[in-house]
Amino acid sequence: MQASIEPLTKLTLPDMQAVNKLILASAGSNVDMIPQVANHLISSGGKRLRPMLTLAAAKMFGYKGVHHVTLATAVEFMHTATLLHDDVVDESGLRRGKSTARIIWGNQASVLVGDFLLGQAFKMMVETGSLPCLEVLSHAAAVIAEGEVMQLASAGHMTTEEDTYLTIIKAKTAVLFAAAAEVGAIIAGKNEETRRNMAAYGKNLGLAFQLVDDALDYGGQTVELGKNIGDDFREGKITLPVILSYIRGNEAERAFWRDAMEQGRNNEAALKRALALITSHKALEDTIKAAQNFGNKARAALAGFADTHYKQALMQVVDFCVNRVT
Amino acid sequence: MQASIEPLTKLTLPDMQAVNKLILASAGSNVDMIPQVANHLISSGGKRLRPMLTLAAAKMFGYKGVHHVTLATAVEFMHTATLLHDDVVDESGLRRGKSTARIIWGNQASVLVGDFLLGQAFKMMVETGSLPCLEVLSHAAAVIAEGEVMQLASAGHMTTEEDTYLTIIKAKTAVLFAAAAEVGAIIAGKNEETRRNMAAYGKNLGLAFQLVDDALDYGGQTVELGKNIGDDFREGKITLPVILSYIRGNEAERAFWRDAMEQGRNNEAALKRALALITSHKALEDTIKAAQNFGNKARAALAGFADTHYKQALMQVVDFCVNRVT
Repeated sequence: MQASIEPLTKLTLPDMQAVNKLILASAGSNVDMIPQVANHLISSGGKRLRPMLTLAAAKMFGYKGVHHVTLATAVEFMHTATLLHDDVVDESGLRRGKSTARIIWGNQASVLVGDFLLGQAFKMMVETGSLPCLEVLSHAAAVIAEGEVMQLASAGHMTTEEDTYLTIIKAKTAVLFAAAAEVGAIIAGKNEETRRNMAAYGKNLGLAFQLVDDALDYGGQTVELGKNIGDDFREGKITLPVILSYIRGNEAERAFWRDAMEQGRNNEAALKRALALITSHKALEDTIKAAQNFGNKARAALAGFADTHYKQALMQVVDFCVNRVT
Repeated sequence: MQASIEPLTKLTLPDMQAVNKLILASAGSNVDMIPQVANHLISSGGKRLRPMLTLAAAKMFGYKGVHHVTLATAVEFMHTATLLHDDVVDESGLRRGKSTARIIWGNQASVLVGDFLLGQAFKMMVETGSLPCLEVLSHAAAVIAEGEVMQLASAGHMTTEEDTYLTIIKAKTAVLFAAAAEVGAIIAGKNEETRRNMAAYGKNLGLAFQLVDDALDYGGQTVELGKNIGDDFREGKITLPVILSYIRGNEAERAFWRDAMEQGRNNEAALKRALALITSHKALEDTIKAAQNFGNKARAALAGFADTHYKQALMQVVDFCVNRVT
């Protein structure tokens, strides 16, 4: 059977409808540009994995209230704000096949609407009255931004090490996955150990998710997925497939990578050579192996919990994230 | 006697030293770019009015703890984050006579370091454990961003009304002044009425402050202050002096303002004509009268409190803000 996020989507459907309502209500404003920009991004068909983690975690631990919906919406707003600012920083033209907000409304609106959504996210968290949730999520906000700055500072320096790379994706992706899962456990009143396990689940799932994303940018293991190939390459983003190829390459190959990533010599011919080098050094296979490794850790973090539908759905999400590459 | 902020500076000196320490500690990061960008802005010689309001309000009401320092630092970080993003949005080259962070480190770093400081601000607020303070400050964060978007959307439309303008400066300036003063009262455990009065003090002080700032951009009542004249004019920012001149102008004058603000015909000759029109319609005098009016409301909001050194210092700040123009 093919692993799927469908069980999770089904289990969280009524709550996700409540999240969607709250998103629309909270992205509303008398200033027209705010709902326009926010809805553009929110309706553009992301998988909404992060809010679903919060909802599923809360329900898995028997939560009966409504704050999980508020927290899930706050998590999604934090993510949306990050995407808006990311696209400005990366000067991206496309996201999920659609023009980015900065192309339609400009960088200025993207920066400011991102700030607005972040402010709304904090308002929502405060509404839940849960200081432990506020702690986890405000910490995540600071770490995410720190990770983005780290990525900016390391972009175009071919000296980047595997560890630096993992630190960056932990900060920019895994921390919010971890927070999303942990606040579900917190709002359900679970103890420190359960919180830690849910955070570990989210963190390792996030790492696996990001590694697979980075592999997909070089075609994954099959090039037939139709995903745009080479975006990271053209932006000079140094991800694990590149680092592994660089480490394993000879002097001529390393010179090629430095030219491509540091000097911006990244035309179609260069991309073709990059793909060939990545293949010859088995860099995608090993990136995916690393993802599988984190996926195993994510599953292990759930091991001690009762075998509910929620747990099964969260387990399947791990498989889905790791396997979408093959 | 010339009104001054010195009494407030003196009274809050030890606490401001603690704020400075906390600023340096919280803007620290393993990612070098973060303290560099943050320190550039923080050390560039702002008056630090907002954190001083928090400190003075807390002390005026007998607060003995340390959370007022944390809150004051959070307020300053929120302000600093706004400045970083503002300069990106306005494409500003100079702030307080120094190159802006975006000129030195680029727009990307300014956006991301702003996000980091905002995240740190929220972490600090959470550390105080005061949900009412979190409510006030997270609300302020959302309203500030909303005001910035409103300003962006209305820039270059010469139809702007006086009310729209006041709504914008209330959101982008007065709300943080109000929050800064109110959280001082909250952390000191004061009741709803006291909180409301402190918020009213801050809000009206902020409005007066911003109106005077906007007047100063056209030279205030004397051109000898050495402030850069015409920055708002060149950016097409429609402030009260412009609105009053437009409302009071004849058809030819209105056409001039539309050309200048909407079509960007804002060279030195145009600025000279703008200054002449502003003078002939007494637009600066009336902008300053509006500021005085808000200043009176700020003073009135303090009327019911005991006549301490803190209260006197806060009163003087109002006079200082209103009078720095003449």
